[in-house]
Amino acid sequence: GDVWEVVDEHHLEGTYEFEDFRDALEFTYEVGELAEEEWHHPDLHLSYGEVVVEMWTHKIDGLFETDFVMAARMDRIHDDYEPEK
Amino acid sequence: GDVWEVVDEHHLEGTYEFEDFRDALEFTYEVGELAEEEWHHPDLHLSYGEVVVEMWTHKIDGLFETDFVMAARMDRIHDDYEPEK
Repeated sequence: GDVWEVVDEHHLEGTYEFEDFRDALEFTYEVGELAEEEWHHPDLHLSYGEVVVEMWTHKIDGLFETDFVMAARMDRIHDDYEPEK
Repeated sequence: GDVWEVVDEHHLEGTYEFEDFRDALEFTYEVGELAEEEWHHPDLHLSYGEVVVEMWTHKIDGLFETDFVMAARMDRIHDDYEPEK
């Protein structure tokens, strides 16, 4: 979808929308668990109904395959928070 | 301590330090639970070893007693994450 963009040829920024604060909070926690498992830690900006993710590979100060794999996994986590159609 | 400052006479900004990502994540979740209980929702910026909180009362677009009460409660939550002396 339109979640992710590459910023300054340096990092990925993803914006996820939610129904409310609770869903955004639970998503943040799930992504945090994923970050711990993969030992790849994005910045997560949680506000009411929105989570903005900033992610890059610190070792190379830029984007690596891991970033795109993680982004795809976050998209799949977010699928569980989609409002019922 | 030196956690909180008033920014632009409009909101509180608090910066909490942690040992690692895990502690910052758990703190974020605990503060999120508090926000839901009180129905007063700050913005939470989670990164490796740090959580920055931005908080104000949206109804008056400024600071109200609730903000300072919440800030004090976050300080107490953070006490549990202090490194062992």
